[in-house]
Amino acid sequence: MAILDARKSKPLEGGASFSLSNRVSRALWQVSWAVLAAWTPPPLFAWRTALLRLFGADIAPSARVYGKTRIWYPPNLTMAENALLGPGVNCYNQARISIGAKAVVSQGAHLCAGTHDINDPDFQLIAKPITIGAGAWVAAEAFVGPGVSIGDGAVLGARGVAFRDIEPWAVYAGNPAKKLKDRPRF
Amino acid sequence: MAILDARKSKPLEGGASFSLSNRVSRALWQVSWAVLAAWTPPPLFAWRTALLRLFGADIAPSARVYGKTRIWYPPNLTMAENALLGPGVNCYNQARISIGAKAVVSQGAHLCAGTHDINDPDFQLIAKPITIGAGAWVAAEAFVGPGVSIGDGAVLGARGVAFRDIEPWAVYAGNPAKKLKDRPRF
Amino acid sequence: MAILDARKSKPLEGGASFSLSNRVSRALWQVSWAVLAAWTPPPLFAWRTALLRLFGADIAPSARVYGKTRIWYPPNLTMAENALLGPGVNCYNQARISIGAKAVVSQGAHLCAGTHDINDPDFQLIAKPITIGAGAWVAAEAFVGPGVSIGDGAVLGARGVAFRDIEPWAVYAGNPAKKLKDRPRF
Repeated sequence: MAILDARKSKPLEGGASFSLSNRVSRALWQVSWAVLAAWTPPPLFAWRTALLRLFGADIAPSARVYGKTRIWYPPNLTMAENALLGPGVNCYNQARISIGAKAVVSQGAHLCAGTHDINDPDFQLIAKPITIGAGAWVAAEAFVGPGVSIGDGAVLGARGVAFRDIEPWAVYAGNPAKKLKDRPRF
Repeated sequence: MAILDARKSKPLEGGASFSLSNRVSRALWQVSWAVLAAWTPPPLFAWRTALLRLFGADIAPSARVYGKTRIWYPPNLTMAENALLGPGVNCYNQARISIGAKAVVSQGAHLCAGTHDINDPDFQLIAKPITIGAGAWVAAEAFVGPGVSIGDGAVLGARGVAFRDIEPWAVYAGNPAKKLKDRPRF
Repeated sequence: MAILDARKSKPLEGGASFSLSNRVSRALWQVSWAVLAAWTPPPLFAWRTALLRLFGADIAPSARVYGKTRIWYPPNLTMAENALLGPGVNCYNQARISIGAKAVVSQGAHLCAGTHDINDPDFQLIAKPITIGAGAWVAAEAFVGPGVSIGDGAVLGARGVAFRDIEPWAVYAGNPAKKLKDRPRF
């Protein structure tokens, strides 16, 4: 990727965290989405999926993204068959974010793949991939932090905040998220 | 209501969760609100209340809803005298949501009446009514889950997350919300 | 400031919480920001800083505010050199909010300087100043309540919710926020 060295770019003093080419390509992406997709009604999933693929996303034809979903950088997005990113989801994929088959990410959830090194005076940006397993459910306005894996079939309840991995076929909630129970496998 | 049987409609594979007539009526509502109300300045409460009533809400003349409040489906909304839904509130009333007299729901709060059956492979949508008691306060960016009753005079602090009922005249906060103390009755 | 006495203005019955002159000046501010700044691309920091200063903010030339940052009332804003308010930050400065040098407030955080007296039947609005220390980091979608001081070099993790002061050079997270560890000083 195109993350710059904070010792040189000095982001705390106004310098960039990403290369110029990355920033230009994201600006182009954002304008394109605003003009061509952000206002489109929900049923036009195929159109939005095609646009994401054109900009570099690895996305199955049956995956669904809403006009109000925000994708930071399409080349870092992977979506399997019938994966869903709901309206208002903030897919902040500074590293790759992968959504498994039939996984559901509900309205307003935040998948945040970026953070900063808090031991570094220059506040180096760090990006770590996020994986949402097949059949998992990240419920409304939940938060998934950088590097976190949500296991297959797992549930992160509404407003749940996960900075650590979530076991497969288990139900978590709270901030920080704690395991409440197992989910029956099917 | 118009919730479809997930075994037949298969929402995880792109099928609808609501009947066609419900979806059409909500699309009409959303367009109407965007064109006629979403941009209106705060003092025009009477105009927005009239629009909500026209679309089926059971709403007192003195109730207040902002242009930036989001109402999912007006026929499922009940607001008593001087009830208030602040700017940015997401009133996701897939089942009825009732707001008592002089109850205040502050900016950015989420009243979420819908969930899914996580024991069902087809992820059946479930909607359960929410009640906010008279004189209660749901503070900024709090979250109230499906089926929850907030007692009269209760306070759910900013960012508090309630999946269980909140006692009347008590103060709760946190995620999950816990009781901190009683509130003096008046 | 211009906070009205709730015993006279009766905000629970539709009365105002702020003086007419305050409301008019904020309406002018909001329209100005929407027309002149909200849509501007990130690099135009100097333009937005100049606009904030024109409306009364005490803001260093190197401070950075995005088009999508929301400032409630510029005269109540103080920003030191290289202080940053990220996109989507809600700077709800009903009392003064001060951001120290090189402090970073990340996307979607909420700095909420206002609350209500829950022991008062008239629900008196109360505003208390917020201070973010130099070199502190309020991470994505965190919440800082009225009267809270975030110490120099402290970190409030993503989605952390602080209603009490945060020690300098310490790391907090959760809702309510708890201290996790110290941060190495530099």
